[in-house]
Amino acid sequence: MTSATPPNLAEKTTLLVLDADPPPRLGRLTGRVRVEHADESSLAALLPTADVLLVWDFASHAVRRAWPGEGPRPRWVHTASAGVDHLMCPELAASDTLVTNARGVFDQPIAEYVAALVLAMAKDLPRTWDLQRAREWRHRESQRIAGTRACVVGSGPIGRAIEGTLKALGITTALVGRTPRAGVHGPEDLDRLIARADWVVSAAPLTEDTYGMFDARRFGLMQPSARFVNVGRGQLVIEEALAEALASRWIAGAALDVFEHEPLGPDSPLWAAPDLIVSPHMSGDTVGWRDELGRQFVELYELWETGEPLPNVVDKQRGYVPGH
Amino acid sequence: MTSATPPNLAEKTTLLVLDADPPPRLGRLTGRVRVEHADESSLAALLPTADVLLVWDFASHAVRRAWPGEGPRPRWVHTASAGVDHLMCPELAASDTLVTNARGVFDQPIAEYVAALVLAMAKDLPRTWDLQRAREWRHRESQRIAGTRACVVGSGPIGRAIEGTLKALGITTALVGRTPRAGVHGPEDLDRLIARADWVVSAAPLTEDTYGMFDARRFGLMQPSARFVNVGRGQLVIEEALAEALASRWIAGAALDVFEHEPLGPDSPLWAAPDLIVSPHMSGDTVGWRDELGRQFVELYELWETGEPLPNVVDKQRGYVPGH
Repeated sequence: MTSATPPNLAEKTTLLVLDADPPPRLGRLTGRVRVEHADESSLAALLPTADVLLVWDFASHAVRRAWPGEGPRPRWVHTASAGVDHLMCPELAASDTLVTNARGVFDQPIAEYVAALVLAMAKDLPRTWDLQRAREWRHRESQRIAGTRACVVGSGPIGRAIEGTLKALGITTALVGRTPRAGVHGPEDLDRLIARADWVVSAAPLTEDTYGMFDARRFGLMQPSARFVNVGRGQLVIEEALAEALASRWIAGAALDVFEHEPLGPDSPLWAAPDLIVSPHMSGDTVGWRDELGRQFVELYELWETGEPLPNVVDKQRGYVPGH
Repeated sequence: MTSATPPNLAEKTTLLVLDADPPPRLGRLTGRVRVEHADESSLAALLPTADVLLVWDFASHAVRRAWPGEGPRPRWVHTASAGVDHLMCPELAASDTLVTNARGVFDQPIAEYVAALVLAMAKDLPRTWDLQRAREWRHRESQRIAGTRACVVGSGPIGRAIEGTLKALGITTALVGRTPRAGVHGPEDLDRLIARADWVVSAAPLTEDTYGMFDARRFGLMQPSARFVNVGRGQLVIEEALAEALASRWIAGAALDVFEHEPLGPDSPLWAAPDLIVSPHMSGDTVGWRDELGRQFVELYELWETGEPLPNVVDKQRGYVPGH
């Protein structure tokens, strides 16, 4: 919790929304706030007019490009995403502007999604689909997940929710974070843990330390029976190295929900990589998620308006909400 | 636990195996027991020679056909399956022969399989596969399973394992059995429970009472958003009624692992029914399952040999192992 400078209540606050379709429902804020809408091309011109910036288009990199320009800057930026890599730049990091994120909204949905992928791979469901389409009855043996081992990389609320769900399914689960603490291994344990894991799950924030961390060396450490899941950020993974690891049977399978370039283009070889499940960055997006993101912003706004400390304040040097 | 008549230990016991490929590994029994092998055509002729019958080919109905014939009958029949519907007949039910089943081996694997199907449907994985094959990036919203409701029909160890796994995933789960007791609803609650369930899971034994229980009337009671899973026996479901319920959008989806006729023929309309997942009776068959079935039989045999009471004794009138 960090205290924010309260706005001058004599005038209406200007809330600039970097918009996406559908736009946010601002509920109780309607009429209390002057709302301006920006798109990627108008953001730079409108940024000096804003007291608060809501990054609703969480796939855009426009903030990172526009921020270093001329003029005043918003005192608070909130992004409707867990990751902040798409908006951070040295000028924003060095500024007094408060940055908050959508911490909490995606935790349980993403944990369920990871469980769905793990179970689908263990029970060979992709092959079941292929055989169904071919109208072919072919019994196979599948795998039990109870008693297997997982290593979850990323010890924030998403990583911890994944850990909780996998443990509930009987999977022995180790969590790896930047700083070792009770229940969390430090980076020095990573190689040892992924070398004996049946499931390696990537749920880390994208930072200088984590960029490209899943590379050929690390896929080479994993067991031939291991499977890899990425629900963090595409840039955590060297995609060519993963494709090679799958083609060479260094590992048994993988599932990617995030990619270096999104949307994944139709020519990407990843669509057809063997034993790879490709999904379109949807792990946290359950029915009602946009409304929940909007409600979360309104709650934060009302704290900010009255000068109360905000939760979900991002450490701009580290690139995530620290602690806990 | 029911006490069995011990065999005459002066002579080797004749164990008749209704074989399947691969055959059972009898481990410690090797050499201690005279083993005869039968297939569907030779079973009737060999049955009078057997002290014990091991029904290793659990897909065969040969026992039901051969049992009423002439001559002495084995004092004990063990089937390497949870269900006994494929071997029971009035003559066997009326006899003194002890019948045991593979209770316990399949519980947790089947519970994981049901969780895999529930999560796959909630997260729209079948559509993800189709889109991946088409190299199409199409974001969708998916469903949370925590907070949804399931009704599991069948209160034996498999139904209870399913209940435990679904509850661990945050699903409010009601269990329905033949006899109401603590934690188990009786049949009189079934219609009310399936009418408000998001997930209806069929894991009941096949008996006169359960034959065809999932019919047009019951699919009509379910919510349009409900999904149905059958891991019990195919004959619990009126397949035409389910196909019609899916085609008419009475329910949102289904997954069948068992069918009225197995293997499902290539001409069956079920392969292409909308929003239906078809898998080839594999829910309980995880790596090592055959070895586990063999070990279980050896353990039961050693109890039987010394005259000790056996677990897993089937109530031949009811068609399952009662109690608990």
